[in-house]
Amino acid sequence: MNGTIDFDTHIRDPLYGYIGLTKTEQYLLDTTPLQRLRRIKQLANVHLVYPAACHSRFEHSLGVLHVATRMAKQLRIDDEDIINLRYAALLHDIGHGPFSHVFEAPIRDINGSDFSHEEITRRIIQEDQEINPILNNNTEDIIALLSEDHNDLLHQIISGNIDADKMDYLRRDSYHSGVTYGNFDLERILFTLRKKKSRERGDLTIHEKGMDAVESFRLARFLMYAQVYYHHTNVVANGMLQRAINIAFRDAIISTDKIRTSNNSFLQNYLSLDDARLLSLILSNLDSNAAILVKKLERRDLFKRGYIINISQEEDYDFKYKLGTKFTQKKAKQIEEAIAEDCKCDPDFIIADVVKNENTLFKSASTLLEEDKIPILIESDDGRIKEIDSFSTLTYTGKPRTIFYLFCPEEHRQKVQENAREIIIGTI
Amino acid sequence: MNGTIDFDTHIRDPLYGYIGLTKTEQYLLDTTPLQRLRRIKQLANVHLVYPAACHSRFEHSLGVLHVATRMAKQLRIDDEDIINLRYAALLHDIGHGPFSHVFEAPIRDINGSDFSHEEITRRIIQEDQEINPILNNNTEDIIALLSEDHNDLLHQIISGNIDADKMDYLRRDSYHSGVTYGNFDLERILFTLRKKKSRERGDLTIHEKGMDAVESFRLARFLMYAQVYYHHTNVVANGMLQRAINIAFRDAIISTDKIRTSNNSFLQNYLSLDDARLLSLILSNLDSNAAILVKKLERRDLFKRGYIINISQEEDYDFKYKLGTKFTQKKAKQIEEAIAEDCKCDPDFIIADVVKNENTLFKSASTLLEEDKIPILIESDDGRIKEIDSFSTLTYTGKPRTIFYLFCPEEHRQKVQENAREIIIGTI
Amino acid sequence: MNGTIDFDTHIRDPLYGYIGLTKTEQYLLDTTPLQRLRRIKQLANVHLVYPAACHSRFEHSLGVLHVATRMAKQLRIDDEDIINLRYAALLHDIGHGPFSHVFEAPIRDINGSDFSHEEITRRIIQEDQEINPILNNNTEDIIALLSEDHNDLLHQIISGNIDADKMDYLRRDSYHSGVTYGNFDLERILFTLRKKKSRERGDLTIHEKGMDAVESFRLARFLMYAQVYYHHTNVVANGMLQRAINIAFRDAIISTDKIRTSNNSFLQNYLSLDDARLLSLILSNLDSNAAILVKKLERRDLFKRGYIINISQEEDYDFKYKLGTKFTQKKAKQIEEAIAEDCKCDPDFIIADVVKNENTLFKSASTLLEEDKIPILIESDDGRIKEIDSFSTLTYTGKPRTIFYLFCPEEHRQKVQENAREIIIGTI
Amino acid sequence: MNGTIDFDTHIRDPLYGYIGLTKTEQYLLDTTPLQRLRRIKQLANVHLVYPAACHSRFEHSLGVLHVATRMAKQLRIDDEDIINLRYAALLHDIGHGPFSHVFEAPIRDINGSDFSHEEITRRIIQEDQEINPILNNNTEDIIALLSEDHNDLLHQIISGNIDADKMDYLRRDSYHSGVTYGNFDLERILFTLRKKKSRERGDLTIHEKGMDAVESFRLARFLMYAQVYYHHTNVVANGMLQRAINIAFRDAIISTDKIRTSNNSFLQNYLSLDDARLLSLILSNLDSNAAILVKKLERRDLFKRGYIINISQEEDYDFKYKLGTKFTQKKAKQIEEAIAEDCKCDPDFIIADVVKNENTLFKSASTLLEEDKIPILIESDDGRIKEIDSFSTLTYTGKPRTIFYLFCPEEHRQKVQENAREIIIGTI
Repeated sequence: MNGTIDFDTHIRDPLYGYIGLTKTEQYLLDTTPLQRLRRIKQLANVHLVYPAACHSRFEHSLGVLHVATRMAKQLRIDDEDIINLRYAALLHDIGHGPFSHVFEAPIRDINGSDFSHEEITRRIIQEDQEINPILNNNTEDIIALLSEDHNDLLHQIISGNIDADKMDYLRRDSYHSGVTYGNFDLERILFTLRKKKSRERGDLTIHEKGMDAVESFRLARFLMYAQVYYHHTNVVANGMLQRAINIAFRDAIISTDKIRTSNNSFLQNYLSLDDARLLSLILSNLDSNAAILVKKLERRDLFKRGYIINISQEEDYDFKYKLGTKFTQKKAKQIEEAIAEDCKCDPDFIIADVVKNENTLFKSASTLLEEDKIPILIESDDGRIKEIDSFSTLTYTGKPRTIFYLFCPEEHRQKVQENAREIIIGTI
Repeated sequence: MNGTIDFDTHIRDPLYGYIGLTKTEQYLLDTTPLQRLRRIKQLANVHLVYPAACHSRFEHSLGVLHVATRMAKQLRIDDEDIINLRYAALLHDIGHGPFSHVFEAPIRDINGSDFSHEEITRRIIQEDQEINPILNNNTEDIIALLSEDHNDLLHQIISGNIDADKMDYLRRDSYHSGVTYGNFDLERILFTLRKKKSRERGDLTIHEKGMDAVESFRLARFLMYAQVYYHHTNVVANGMLQRAINIAFRDAIISTDKIRTSNNSFLQNYLSLDDARLLSLILSNLDSNAAILVKKLERRDLFKRGYIINISQEEDYDFKYKLGTKFTQKKAKQIEEAIAEDCKCDPDFIIADVVKNENTLFKSASTLLEEDKIPILIESDDGRIKEIDSFSTLTYTGKPRTIFYLFCPEEHRQKVQENAREIIIGTI
Repeated sequence: MNGTIDFDTHIRDPLYGYIGLTKTEQYLLDTTPLQRLRRIKQLANVHLVYPAACHSRFEHSLGVLHVATRMAKQLRIDDEDIINLRYAALLHDIGHGPFSHVFEAPIRDINGSDFSHEEITRRIIQEDQEINPILNNNTEDIIALLSEDHNDLLHQIISGNIDADKMDYLRRDSYHSGVTYGNFDLERILFTLRKKKSRERGDLTIHEKGMDAVESFRLARFLMYAQVYYHHTNVVANGMLQRAINIAFRDAIISTDKIRTSNNSFLQNYLSLDDARLLSLILSNLDSNAAILVKKLERRDLFKRGYIINISQEEDYDFKYKLGTKFTQKKAKQIEEAIAEDCKCDPDFIIADVVKNENTLFKSASTLLEEDKIPILIESDDGRIKEIDSFSTLTYTGKPRTIFYLFCPEEHRQKVQENAREIIIGTI
Repeated sequence: MNGTIDFDTHIRDPLYGYIGLTKTEQYLLDTTPLQRLRRIKQLANVHLVYPAACHSRFEHSLGVLHVATRMAKQLRIDDEDIINLRYAALLHDIGHGPFSHVFEAPIRDINGSDFSHEEITRRIIQEDQEINPILNNNTEDIIALLSEDHNDLLHQIISGNIDADKMDYLRRDSYHSGVTYGNFDLERILFTLRKKKSRERGDLTIHEKGMDAVESFRLARFLMYAQVYYHHTNVVANGMLQRAINIAFRDAIISTDKIRTSNNSFLQNYLSLDDARLLSLILSNLDSNAAILVKKLERRDLFKRGYIINISQEEDYDFKYKLGTKFTQKKAKQIEEAIAEDCKCDPDFIIADVVKNENTLFKSASTLLEEDKIPILIESDDGRIKEIDSFSTLTYTGKPRTIFYLFCPEEHRQKVQENAREIIIGTI
């Protein structure tokens, strides 16, 4: 595995045995921003469904480093590029806030739509007093490598159709959750990776022999979303948590000023947050609705599904169409208020949400090209390269599985069940 | 696991820990016909591709007993029925000949199209001097349970859409081959099995909560066929072996008389055959083409793919249509002879075959009903039952993956490659 | 598995597939004290060595419930007793403080030697407003069952030589850490468990056929201690954390009053603590040495091994003897102060500790009887029962592996290395 | 993994994912002698206890190639040496007869005590028409490497204390049997392997950090012998099979002439034998006792334990001493005849055997040195090397577990049980 890389430490990993690290990587790992990832759960509230899923983004980052290296070796990428690739892999999630994606919408509301955890990652690499000096001259290369604009082979290894990120998290999340859905044939995919010859540095393709492993990979992704990431218990818990965060900002329990990107100590403030620290801040004012929600989460006293619509199966076309396409944050708020009024309940405790399991990996080549995305490319024995669609005899319709949820406290459930449909129709 | 069943022995199994057996089941297991299954490989020649796949039909039969029992417990089937179900599970493969499916065509050629291993199973249960007395009064029930005509819940547990047979072999064949394709979520399927209420004894359905496990189950089946059972190396090896058997019968190296079902000692003769004994008989005349083929198999000196057409991808519509629909045993023989003449080679050593990976589990409900088969049924939370199509947002086109192979000795490969297409077009 | 128990929910577990829960158990699970176990890591700081080891005591408690039930079924224990056994299993760790064992010494210093997490468990069962009403009339039985004084079969299932607690945590800690040391043959042990016939309710024995599984079980325990629980990185991290807690109490950063067992709201205060909340309290005064230590832990900036003595291998007998037998908390403090003085360092940042891997399960029967403990009992085919010693041809010398550690900040390492031996000799 | 080795093929393996092979290795693999290993079960009759244990010596040979390569990479052995090491690994079991060790005693009786499967391996490498030309100039190096006389580092990798052979078979036999006993921490051992610096090419040592992995490795070996290889059902089955082979030679059912090593076509004759072919030869005369025994084995109609003495536990010292030390083939025969006479039974059907589970890996350094064997060497952090005894606080007494078995047909069991002790005492 280690070609010319000289490892200084080895870390035990349940999926890969040992993961080797160079001295510099070890320094990187021991910085505050990376150690902080130990305190950010990979799957936020999923452990409320699958109690064993308590693993951290730290563990996942090491996994991505390992898989990215194996991909790079298979693709015969230069050692020099591999060094940067490994740094990028370690750092790819460093910009995540507490509870990862849950925190992203609230902080974007404060900072405007430019905000993204990828942008924070860039800033940490450039500005962090511990990380930047370690990376030295490689800083710009690593930022380029991680940037969505820079769609070359190295970038695709970290973030593409079939990338080290997904290949690690699908199997790792399965492993720790105790489910089997994410367990595709990693060895086969690694082994059939090819570099497309036509472009200078080339794109990623999979040899025909690996096509069935790709089939299981893309189904694995779909099923993990359906059964784990979008499990309704996780959806409601994340909804409650996000609501609590929003309230905490709205009611000035947490200062919004400190986490404005324009603030001089923004990075320091942002990096001081982790899962527990955020909850602690919210709980500093026990009377607020935010604290009530967090307290409920801590007892797993979750809101119930007051109303639920499987939009894909909805038979009233007009309703289906509106929910499927016109649902916005603003509409959600209107629905929540209307429902709250009807049950005489605080609108902070009504949550309307639409969850869409999109199956990007199953989209047809034509749809993807319209969206300016690259389809999965398969290389046949004779060297020709085609999109996966034209090889697969197992074609999928890419219809997303879309569900509308209305969550409410147990005591309002019946009332919500009775009146929700009418109220929603009237609102949307 | 053991409710009221009183186990006398426990057998260690790599998939399930321990499999308990009653005293009677132990007696059944220790009969000649069941012990013979130890000497019939579950996957015939697959070990020539995946060297670890040497497991036997004996091990699989125990596995089916175990899974069938767990299904039955979940479906709250009566203990009395479970007893018969377990016997049936143990016995379901007892009629298999050496190398299972490979032997079936040759022996059917001798006995006419009525012959099937299921029919042999029935005769063994009724006539075998060791087995019949153990089963006692239950004989007829077990035969009924195993019969394709008798499509009730118990039969479906052994042989249906989602049955103990497939649920065992997909995971077991994966385990011993070392691949991950067959590794669906058994626990989830078991756990969401339901009995349909409308019919007297009821049919099998899966609760909506298990739908994603079913998605992975049916993809597992498809992928195991694609990557293991229909792997081209297994196809050519089975082709060579079947050719050897055919020649051995044709040239009277093995007496066809002994295995005519009308022969008085047919059962005894049939049951004396196992994988090794059959090869031994063929090798008794070392000069025959049959022995030459077996010798080649023993050295893994396999014929090469002289010509191969992925019919699903073929662009000449007319050719595609003919190969896909008009290919028969007779046409195969004509092609083989024409090719053999062209390369001045013995036609015994040219093998034409079409392999079709059919994806039955992905067929639409309408197609299945036309074929008089039952689609997978899903029960929603509100108790309604629909075919899986209407629930799945991941719909597959059921196009089979069909491949035409022309195998030949290495030395004729080039010639075959050059002329095959023309010869086939001229013949078919 | 479920005999007459009627399960209402099933929870997915990576080791056992699904764990069934009754309605009452589900209520119990959803109480504040049990949900709090989600926020107490099973292995405190072990994740600093094995990054994947982030699992919680909550997950483990479910596991103990499952294994205890399987043991009870094998031993044919009455359903009524099984109900209590399951409650006891769920509750057995409920008295643990933050970071489990790390918190125990500091809180005992405050409350006197009577304090133990077992005692807290008892009080929670009797006094907690959520838990007590659910358990109803069974409260006293469950407390008895969990009590060390009450050494009957049920108690031994939860806490004995070969108990559900160890059988779960060895395999679970292995699983999540990614090591193989704890992976003994659970199925075989379960399967060879026997009830000793001579006493009224009987003791636990293992049939001779399971003796080798017991060998691997006790080695598993030893190796998990050596490689995981007593890994030097975990020892130093726990040492630093415990020091921080002690300082926080000493310097009144955390009020000792609130967690005096005599305080009226003791239980409430105690149960409000979890891993993160404790750290948060310590960090409320950033200037204290306690906060400095916690900050270091968060960056994985650990003290180094300034001096280390493998006492088992030490050749100076006198020194070995003293360290092995005379080392007390008071001596530790004296050593720390002497070292600190020598390197002109704050004694808060010098940690002296002795870690002893005791191998209880390997002790000879005679030693155990002297200690009033029960040896592992093996039942031979003829029904005779003997201690494991007389069956095992693989006898172990029970010598503990004892290591003395002196941890210090990196910058004092060299000085400590030079002078430690002399200073220790002069002090002890 | 692949440094400078250029792999041409990859073979799927359940333990290691993919095993890469060079073109030459692929040629070697496709020779008659290597393909024959597909037809020799790794564990002879163990599948009669663990039905899933049907794997072949072929699969194991690939595994040894893989582990040996990983060891060699860790030890930084030259590429040139690795090439030979890999050939030697592939070939190390090529001299095994049908049913491996079972066949060895009978054929040694014919050829004298010089005969060993290692000697056959040597002859195959030197004389086989397919293998010798492929190996070319390396033949002598490979023979030297495999020779017991040549105890350098390369030899120790294939056959030493901690060698690729054991490290593969313990885990592989566990995997296919479905037991967990053999599952030590391979990754840790590989990772802590060191080359001793003092000798020219150096010996194998393990760094102190890997000592606990070695503890689990040596216990794994002991337990696999106890629970799998020396399981009494395997012992009786192997006993019956060996008896059948002896009778077949004695009664000239199989010609002894053909397999005399002095015979010109010895190698060809020997290599034509595999598990099934040998049974076929024995069954060619259905009237002989040999055929009766084989027929019984095929129905799993095994002899019973008529008398069994756990010599380690025997209390009559004199008897214990004699059985433990004076038991020879000749004595066995006398006992068998005396028992047979007593029950009026054919002595061919009485089998006396002593099975000794020796725990070589637990022997003390002094015992091993007396036997001219090397103890396991551990390298401490400071570079000193000592035998494992002086590091391990877990010392084992090396007493072997020795059992005397007297097997007989069911119908004579009672009589044997009654009189065996007296008869044995009178005979031995």
